Amino acid sequence: MKRFFFTPGPSQLYFTVEEHLKSALTENVPSISHRSAAFQEIYRHTTDLLKELFRLPAGYHIFFTGSATEIWERSIQNLVEYESCHFVNGAFSQRYAGIAENLGRKTSVIRVSEGKVVDVESVLITESCELIALTQNETSTGASHALGDVEKIRKGFPNQLISLDIVSCAPYSNIDYSLVDMAYLSVQKCFGLPAGLGVWIANERCIQKSETLLGKGMSIGSYHSLPELLAKSQKNQTPETPNVLGIYLLGKVAEDMLAKGLDMIRREIDYKAAVLYNAFEKSEFLSPFVKDPAHQSKTTLVAEVAVPSRVILNKLAEKGMIIGSGYGPFKERHIRIANFPTHSKEQVEVLADELLMIGK
Amino acid sequence: MKRFFFTPGPSQLYFTVEEHLKSALTENVPSISHRSAAFQEIYRHTTDLLKELFRLPAGYHIFFTGSATEIWERSIQNLVEYESCHFVNGAFSQRYAGIAENLGRKTSVIRVSEGKVVDVESVLITESCELIALTQNETSTGASHALGDVEKIRKGFPNQLISLDIVSCAPYSNIDYSLVDMAYLSVQKCFGLPAGLGVWIANERCIQKSETLLGKGMSIGSYHSLPELLAKSQKNQTPETPNVLGIYLLGKVAEDMLAKGLDMIRREIDYKAAVLYNAFEKSEFLSPFVKDPAHQSKTTLVAEVAVPSRVILNKLAEKGMIIGSGYGPFKERHIRIANFPTHSKEQVEVLADELLMIGK
Repeated sequence: MKRFFFTPGPSQLYFTVEEHLKSALTENVPSISHRSAAFQEIYRHTTDLLKELFRLPAGYHIFFTGSATEIWERSIQNLVEYESCHFVNGAFSQRYAGIAENLGRKTSVIRVSEGKVVDVESVLITESCELIALTQNETSTGASHALGDVEKIRKGFPNQLISLDIVSCAPYSNIDYSLVDMAYLSVQKCFGLPAGLGVWIANERCIQKSETLLGKGMSIGSYHSLPELLAKSQKNQTPETPNVLGIYLLGKVAEDMLAKGLDMIRREIDYKAAVLYNAFEKSEFLSPFVKDPAHQSKTTLVAEVAVPSRVILNKLAEKGMIIGSGYGPFKERHIRIANFPTHSKEQVEVLADELLMIGK
Repeated sequence: MKRFFFTPGPSQLYFTVEEHLKSALTENVPSISHRSAAFQEIYRHTTDLLKELFRLPAGYHIFFTGSATEIWERSIQNLVEYESCHFVNGAFSQRYAGIAENLGRKTSVIRVSEGKVVDVESVLITESCELIALTQNETSTGASHALGDVEKIRKGFPNQLISLDIVSCAPYSNIDYSLVDMAYLSVQKCFGLPAGLGVWIANERCIQKSETLLGKGMSIGSYHSLPELLAKSQKNQTPETPNVLGIYLLGKVAEDMLAKGLDMIRREIDYKAAVLYNAFEKSEFLSPFVKDPAHQSKTTLVAEVAVPSRVILNKLAEKGMIIGSGYGPFKERHIRIANFPTHSKEQVEVLADELLMIGK
């Protein structure tokens, strides 16, 4: 049976990926040298299109890593001398703080319970804090910040660097990147690509901070420090032999998304989210985990379930629809459904119908 | 025109990879969760087959990173408190030492000129040195250690950890892994896979050393520290969302290589190397860069050229054969030819004929 993945990453491949993989093989993309002009052209194409897709302001760079997890580590290494501040409302925002602690940094954590987001109006952050880590969309719980929250944090704390997790909401969320200093994602979520590539957006303030730390004699890592990434990116290269195929495919999918238009992609995601939340509300077995509609994620939807999640997962799997269980302690008590650009309206409507059939 | 890559990594894909990519898509490998039983089975399959291929002794673990470059950094972070010792005879062995310095470690470097290897009988290494870094096959110059050299180092320095670079010679080189504490490779060389995955072999002594450093309050990194890699590997998982497709393909190619037999693969590589070195000797435009036949690499063959390397590269490219230029300062003065398991005897014979036709 053909299966279709609504899992919140890795997820269903973007519907053009298989075709692009064929082209990649025809063009010998996996065999070309990462120091060749052919690679430089792939690098330039992908970063140019991402900059266009995200409407990055001048002075914002794009770097590639092995994963978003790696960007957690590299950003702390390069941008934090003593202390970072983390808004924590789930497993992934917590892990970023944990990595900062692994690296010997002091962390101040502003915590709210899962399913909620920190009220940005009320937060107090000390001047000693060098970086504020905010998760636009917490993949583990489906709690999403309002778009205006980043602007409030920026205005309240102009001296801090702001690091924004856009792992499971870019390019859906219409972020004004001039308000943050760095942001990051991994390609197996909304971009619908095979895992193994992280994308790090960083501005000149980040570069300067890393150079300041280096100048003080701190270790900011080696091949993936910001200065090394920057030096190579200026030649459309990477410090190591990278995931060339992943960078190629990302450029191709970014091109497809630009051709389709982000407005259209966003409207479709809004529509599909409405269909699914409507099913959550109507089903006697489901209810949205995030109670405040303003904070309900449009891209990773989480429902509390009245029966063990595996009952629902198994029932949907019989129909070829693979959804996610809850994350960590919520494994049995939640289901998680990805609503990414590759998931069509028709497929989501069928999924919503099946959710409403549960128990009938 | 169909092109065939003899570049020393990335190189021609292993001849079965395209077929395995198709299977991966049919089996939804890029979409499955990295926390699922399906992924655990892929992880187990790949690591089991690599252990069989390398005949790893008990107590040797296999971990995955984004690149071999990452393993340079992680190994220093996890295994060296103060000082590492590096045998340097080219750009890659030099880079390992450079990364140790980036991380604030003292390095002692035993250097010989490019094209030579350190005479292991003569080396003196102080007891303060914690890790000895040896490059079995220096990809930048094609200088290769005799297989017995590792044993001599092991006997001479039983207290140090030995880190062996097998990037461009595994699984061709018949290494006795019980003589080293760690070894590493990247999959775009002899395994003929798309780049973006490093393989780290490490024994219990390495795990213990990393735990000792952690116990002393040192930072050994975060998600890719040896204790974190080990904890996840015991569940057939990785700390981050890894290059799932790369891990799957590596297992499939390892299976293919075991089915063919390493003896056969080694005999073919020996034969093809003899054909190519014979062409180097006979051509008036070429001569082996490594003068001592005992140290001439069988997998990455380097020739000095009497004309600028691009003349030869262009001439071969007209016939669809892509070879490598010299590395770094040798760019114009050398050519480099990969002789990996995927390069057939027939293709190498044609390449050798074309090399002999140059100038005629």
